Amino acid sequence: LGSPLLHQVRRTIERHALLPAGSRVVVGLSGGSDSVALACLLLDLSGPGGFAVAGLAHTNHQLRPTADRDEAFCRDLAARLGQPFVTETMDVRGHADSRKLTIEDAARRLRYDVLARAAARLDADRIAVGHTEDDQAETLLLKLVRGAGPTGLAGIYPRRGRVVRPLLEVSRADLRRHLEQIGRSWVEDETNQDLENPRNRIRHVVLPELERSYGGTVRAALARAADILREDARMLDELAEGRFSALVTATAGGLTVDAAGLAAEPGPIVRRVLLKALREVSGGREVERAHVRGAADVLAGACGGIDVPGGRVELRRGILVFTRRGAGQGDILDEP
Amino acid sequence: LGSPLLHQVRRTIERHALLPAGSRVVVGLSGGSDSVALACLLLDLSGPGGFAVAGLAHTNHQLRPTADRDEAFCRDLAARLGQPFVTETMDVRGHADSRKLTIEDAARRLRYDVLARAAARLDADRIAVGHTEDDQAETLLLKLVRGAGPTGLAGIYPRRGRVVRPLLEVSRADLRRHLEQIGRSWVEDETNQDLENPRNRIRHVVLPELERSYGGTVRAALARAADILREDARMLDELAEGRFSALVTATAGGLTVDAAGLAAEPGPIVRRVLLKALREVSGGREVERAHVRGAADVLAGACGGIDVPGGRVELRRGILVFTRRGAGQGDILDEP
Repeated sequence: LGSPLLHQVRRTIERHALLPAGSRVVVGLSGGSDSVALACLLLDLSGPGGFAVAGLAHTNHQLRPTADRDEAFCRDLAARLGQPFVTETMDVRGHADSRKLTIEDAARRLRYDVLARAAARLDADRIAVGHTEDDQAETLLLKLVRGAGPTGLAGIYPRRGRVVRPLLEVSRADLRRHLEQIGRSWVEDETNQDLENPRNRIRHVVLPELERSYGGTVRAALARAADILREDARMLDELAEGRFSALVTATAGGLTVDAAGLAAEPGPIVRRVLLKALREVSGGREVERAHVRGAADVLAGACGGIDVPGGRVELRRGILVFTRRGAGQGDILDEP
Repeated sequence: LGSPLLHQVRRTIERHALLPAGSRVVVGLSGGSDSVALACLLLDLSGPGGFAVAGLAHTNHQLRPTADRDEAFCRDLAARLGQPFVTETMDVRGHADSRKLTIEDAARRLRYDVLARAAARLDADRIAVGHTEDDQAETLLLKLVRGAGPTGLAGIYPRRGRVVRPLLEVSRADLRRHLEQIGRSWVEDETNQDLENPRNRIRHVVLPELERSYGGTVRAALARAADILREDARMLDELAEGRFSALVTATAGGLTVDAAGLAAEPGPIVRRVLLKALREVSGGREVERAHVRGAADVLAGACGGIDVPGGRVELRRGILVFTRRGAGQGDILDEP
């Protein structure tokens, strides 16, 4: 109970208030090392006066040849740990096709649906998933190379609503060592070896190359950077929300913004207010960094107006006007 | 004159107000493609009503076998461009040894010294250096893998005092293509091939691998992320400066901070105020993220006090007390 690993997980739980006293947590269990370790560690840390483990929940995605073996492994582990076990088999491919999602995205969405139903069945108010420091580092690199988006980078959150990630500050290597020490086995996901998958390339090619060059602290350094960036971004997002409320007025056809007032704000606030305004007229279309830059140029008077996803932005007598397409005004040139 | 490259450089100069009308700029010229392109582009963009190029300045570091050839190349280029030329030969190795600096760091410092003297001689009020989008991307990755430091990541600044970087939003590949089109040659720096150098590993191994995986937009995506992170960090730094002034009091032996007031601030402000306080008692020693975390634990009451570089932090009756070592109070245990 006094291992440094257990200590770090307890510290993460306390620092981010993941599992308050009296809470009941369902643990997402894929059968891989991270989730097996999560189940074992949370059972060690649970107890009277603290939180309780309500049970383990597995999703059979029917994607891998080993899907049924993995489910059986999880069922057996739950029995050995004396825990209630919930499993659902989902048609990931069908869901991906019908919703036009990637397989990865469809699997992720269905998995969280299964966890939500499991929480309801097991009377749990928290859902724990096994993301580690390694996932945090990989996600940050992935976001960086794909383009940070208009407002930057936020890594994986320790808590989002009911979903908590107690392993976010420990490494996969330490978790595997722990499992070996306590004599617990896990299943290997052979799809993690597929180098066509961008995340797997980061994991198996890019990160090992960075570690060869800069030593074994690379993943931890990236994960700590992600923490700092997430906190910084959250504070700026909150400040920008306040300025948005003060500066932006909803109209029948879109939004208007006090241009002089917005231009007087610092760049990070200007960018975030413009992004939020662009998203509100976009009708769900994706807003990119170039659109935010274009709107900033209009605000600065560098051009009179530009088309943006779902609408148009123009500067009219000191007012920045966001018009929804089809809202009956503006010159809409690029699309019917 | 209407090339997209020239347009982008003009845009960078205008957006960041790098070279105001009437300013005179000295251009740092190594002879490599970036600095040769910088000299040519700034000459194209200069003129009456705008800025003027005051001349070209070269530093002979005496490090490479080709150092004298490179100097001769630069002198010849200046003559062809009809520009004043200033060069100085510096003892980089000796400077590195006597100041206990890395060769890279010593060369950088001496180069900026040479540029400052050249600006004085040529009556220039701006110094232009040839950092590109590629340098920006490499720097961000280097900072990430080395650990982001206590307050995160800021990339290369378009302007720092008199030093301006007009090429920060264009790629090295585009600059080389431009030089080939206008028939200008450059010298290759063979030390850029040394893969023992961390930056060269990023440039020649890591970034190409990322580009193979994610396409040719990786460098641009990283550079744009660096822009956003730099602006975000600057705003938070400024907010934290204001809170530091309000919450921190200098004492004979160090600093005191209103603990309840600081604890009520958002995490990014707490982190930055603690960092600044730690730096002020550190006596120039390096403050790391772990020290900021430790001080945050003391602030939160998780422990009574900790030793930090150059001193100690303790919580005493609602006051967070930073004591300089040898300042006559506190229990100093770890060093004489």
